[in-house]
Amino acid sequence: MSKLLDDAVAEFSRLPGIGRRTAMRLALHLLRMEPSEVGAMTGAIDRFRSNIKYCRLCNNLSDEDICPVCADESRDKTTVCVVEQVSDVLSIENTRQYKGLYHVLGGVISPMQGIGPSDLKIDLLLDNVRRGVIREVILAIGTTVEGETTQFYIARRLSETGGIKVTTIARGIGFGDEIEYADDLTIAHALHNRTVVK
Amino acid sequence: MSKLLDDAVAEFSRLPGIGRRTAMRLALHLLRMEPSEVGAMTGAIDRFRSNIKYCRLCNNLSDEDICPVCADESRDKTTVCVVEQVSDVLSIENTRQYKGLYHVLGGVISPMQGIGPSDLKIDLLLDNVRRGVIREVILAIGTTVEGETTQFYIARRLSETGGIKVTTIARGIGFGDEIEYADDLTIAHALHNRTVVK
Repeated sequence: MSKLLDDAVAEFSRLPGIGRRTAMRLALHLLRMEPSEVGAMTGAIDRFRSNIKYCRLCNNLSDEDICPVCADESRDKTTVCVVEQVSDVLSIENTRQYKGLYHVLGGVISPMQGIGPSDLKIDLLLDNVRRGVIREVILAIGTTVEGETTQFYIARRLSETGGIKVTTIARGIGFGDEIEYADDLTIAHALHNRTVVK
Repeated sequence: MSKLLDDAVAEFSRLPGIGRRTAMRLALHLLRMEPSEVGAMTGAIDRFRSNIKYCRLCNNLSDEDICPVCADESRDKTTVCVVEQVSDVLSIENTRQYKGLYHVLGGVISPMQGIGPSDLKIDLLLDNVRRGVIREVILAIGTTVEGETTQFYIARRLSETGGIKVTTIARGIGFGDEIEYADDLTIAHALHNRTVVK
């Protein structure tokens, strides 16, 4: 009916999890914003996509060639936490418990989706390790089949370099989770890796 | 961590129903699109907000001063369907059952939200009716308290003009709905307005 509206709806629909109905709702919501506010929004989106870089040390998103974590002199450069994606870095940073560096793989090995080891930043990780400063690599990768495969593959590649500790984050019952509803594998892991209270 | 990312996430979060987590997911999804594709998206959004108009006859969204429905010579100009918002026009047009004109109020009377009759396009509707071509006004407004109030108010204002038929769309059990789960008022309406089968 209105080509301008149709175009806006079609473009919103390209985003993940946004169907035609939601796209229409978003487009009509724009009418309650000033054109300048909409311009500020689209400007920020364009600038993000056009100017964002990947840190050449850890493959994290960054405004500069080297990300703020790698550039921060106060971080522990002997420890690297390997994660699947950028949002994992943000989740771990939010806890304020981790003071080492990160390494963003950019995905997990998935033959089904045609993603092999060479599609991930594994060689960059090995290059960093070979430089000799890193003493521990923490693998913080999801517990899917693909995640476990990736973890296994990286651990094996790291064993070639020798002399460094490779760990994985603890698997167990999450805070707020009921044992009753946890799956067998999680319960088995949680029991096996029990810690001494007293 | 990245100002570019933070800005994009903050702007996505301004949209209704999009929290920080979803905004982050949308922003990270942009990385899988080409910058030119993102530019096409933001361009369509900007053009929509900057260039869209409201039809000066019916207040529907339009690319021109007069919307395609009002401009269409084949539509029945003696019948006007009054709706709350633009998306209602699209819903009714989708049925391909209605050949008359529309009138978009731009909301409903809601003292709680400070929306009075003068904030809606009711005077424009009366002006159109006074021109003498319209013979029936169909009120297709939601069955909320505010919707019923608005319907009552418009019906009263229309009675001043005289000589036109004012109708409301049928209230009843929707297709696919179970009588068991319908509310009392809907069932009462459906019984009262029963139609003859044979």
